[in-house]
Amino acid sequence: MTESRNKRKCIVAIDAMGGDFAPLNELHGAVLALKEIDNVEVVLVGNEKLIRDTASKESIDISKISIVDAQEVINMSDTPTVAIRKKPNSSLVIGANLVKEKIADAFVSAGNTGAMLAAATLLIGRIKGVGRPTIGASYPTQTGKFTTVFDSGSSVDSKPSHLFEYAIMGSIFASEIYNYPNPTIGLLNVGEEESKGNELALASHQLLKNSKLNFFGNVEGRDIFKGKVDIVVCDGFTGNVVLKLAESVIGFLKIKIKQYADKGILNSLKALVVKNVLKVALKDMDYQSHGGVPVLGVNGIAIVGHGSSSPLAVKNMILRAKEMYDKNLIEKMEEAINKYAVN
Amino acid sequence: MTESRNKRKCIVAIDAMGGDFAPLNELHGAVLALKEIDNVEVVLVGNEKLIRDTASKESIDISKISIVDAQEVINMSDTPTVAIRKKPNSSLVIGANLVKEKIADAFVSAGNTGAMLAAATLLIGRIKGVGRPTIGASYPTQTGKFTTVFDSGSSVDSKPSHLFEYAIMGSIFASEIYNYPNPTIGLLNVGEEESKGNELALASHQLLKNSKLNFFGNVEGRDIFKGKVDIVVCDGFTGNVVLKLAESVIGFLKIKIKQYADKGILNSLKALVVKNVLKVALKDMDYQSHGGVPVLGVNGIAIVGHGSSSPLAVKNMILRAKEMYDKNLIEKMEEAINKYAVN
Repeated sequence: MTESRNKRKCIVAIDAMGGDFAPLNELHGAVLALKEIDNVEVVLVGNEKLIRDTASKESIDISKISIVDAQEVINMSDTPTVAIRKKPNSSLVIGANLVKEKIADAFVSAGNTGAMLAAATLLIGRIKGVGRPTIGASYPTQTGKFTTVFDSGSSVDSKPSHLFEYAIMGSIFASEIYNYPNPTIGLLNVGEEESKGNELALASHQLLKNSKLNFFGNVEGRDIFKGKVDIVVCDGFTGNVVLKLAESVIGFLKIKIKQYADKGILNSLKALVVKNVLKVALKDMDYQSHGGVPVLGVNGIAIVGHGSSSPLAVKNMILRAKEMYDKNLIEKMEEAINKYAVN
Repeated sequence: MTESRNKRKCIVAIDAMGGDFAPLNELHGAVLALKEIDNVEVVLVGNEKLIRDTASKESIDISKISIVDAQEVINMSDTPTVAIRKKPNSSLVIGANLVKEKIADAFVSAGNTGAMLAAATLLIGRIKGVGRPTIGASYPTQTGKFTTVFDSGSSVDSKPSHLFEYAIMGSIFASEIYNYPNPTIGLLNVGEEESKGNELALASHQLLKNSKLNFFGNVEGRDIFKGKVDIVVCDGFTGNVVLKLAESVIGFLKIKIKQYADKGILNSLKALVVKNVLKVALKDMDYQSHGGVPVLGVNGIAIVGHGSSSPLAVKNMILRAKEMYDKNLIEKMEEAINKYAVN
């Protein structure tokens, strides 16, 4: 099956109305992806007239791209589950349904993350045995490798069994997408000792310790940037706070350096050097280059990107979708869930 | 009462065996503090022979400092509550008891944070009406002000009433220690909307919203370095992860810049500029200069510092203890707890 599937094209549907700069960046990103990789077909889902007008105005050649018309748009401010129900003709709902109906192999969106998660979970559906689909966030580390934290905010009241699922799915993600052999799993906690932690952490530690997963033990907040483990699992509340705090570091640095630069001409010259060095030294922290993160645990490929996704980010989302398709990631997730499941 | 107290000397007991470089840094810090401020008396609590030998060997003049002998030491690896009970002759227990018995006005330690919290809570005792004493962590922000997060790990399974107490005590801390008038309070959450969050956040939001405190609303991980509010409240699990993640940022930057510098002579010259600029631009992130954080909610002044506290950090802990004493912070905490308490 792997063989035959890899021979045919991978069809990636894109939410053309999703990002803050939609549909422009989505169009550019789609064209970039088609230039870079073979065996992929791109479908733009969105307001057809707007898509064609934008392509024409910006001289973007979309002749090789098909369009599926969608008259509604789910905004960033929409309540996810409500929007999914009340906007059946939205690009996000139609795109997810293309995957559900096996018309497309993957769906990518830079739109409302919560709505994408809801659409993936409710429309595409969960993999058998998965209680809670999850979205991870990958952090650059001092080792040069990435550490991916699950969950980063898909659900806020997580149970030990959910953290256990995140560990299984995260392992497949790290080994297949990052090519890390036998990835290590850490449990985010307030101390290294087994006796440390809140109720959730204590119970999750026991579940992970008694499993056949490659469990390293507890890790702390400082171990994320250190790259102590490949996968970190935690409840979605903590993971979301960590994600937003970590993402704010670059902006904080920029402002502090600007404040320094504003104190004189010599300072501003030095600050210029700093900006150039940090741009190179911290290039891993450019979240655009990651190109979105997959919703893991659903029965199809669904990738969600930043609202501010650049054409490069959109291209990378499509590339990642294709990679997940080629590597049969969904099937591998299902196998792993069955293999390691406690019950 | 305020008048008469401020006229007499503030007696600060120091855990001379606490930090990683004890008793050396404690001795140096004590001498620095005595040089800088009047009306303070310092008591070193620890192994008297070791203290005298160290002072003699390093030519530190401790003639103005009294010593209270303590033959035991609580180590960083000791389990807090067990250590408090099993090591009654430790510097940490004796120091806390000096405050309990009103022999000293304050106790500062760069030792085991958990043990210091336990000693402060169990020996000095809680302020009436306080369920959970708390330790905050102050973060530099892009506004130049500090944002202090309570709780930073004192307890991991927090209840809404605890977060409410943190908000009250944090307000007093920010207005008295940082001189921020009517400080704003944010609830750490996964989104700005009132409907967002886990069970704890949802219930805490209602408690804070319906109180007379200066509640701003929900804040997210990114709002800490932005300095959106003066005080952030959250459960100690999340707060501890945030603290350790934030503290790791500088180390991560240093390593990334070193990796850049190692790629050639031009790079290493540029990296030198970067290091010098960041040292100035990010000087607020030097946790040593804060000089420890008080245990809030206990019936006496107790300040805990980093294990790696420098002499400067120890000096700043003593200065902060003196400031808290002069400002009658404990009495103000008690008044505020009574004023805002729900019951």
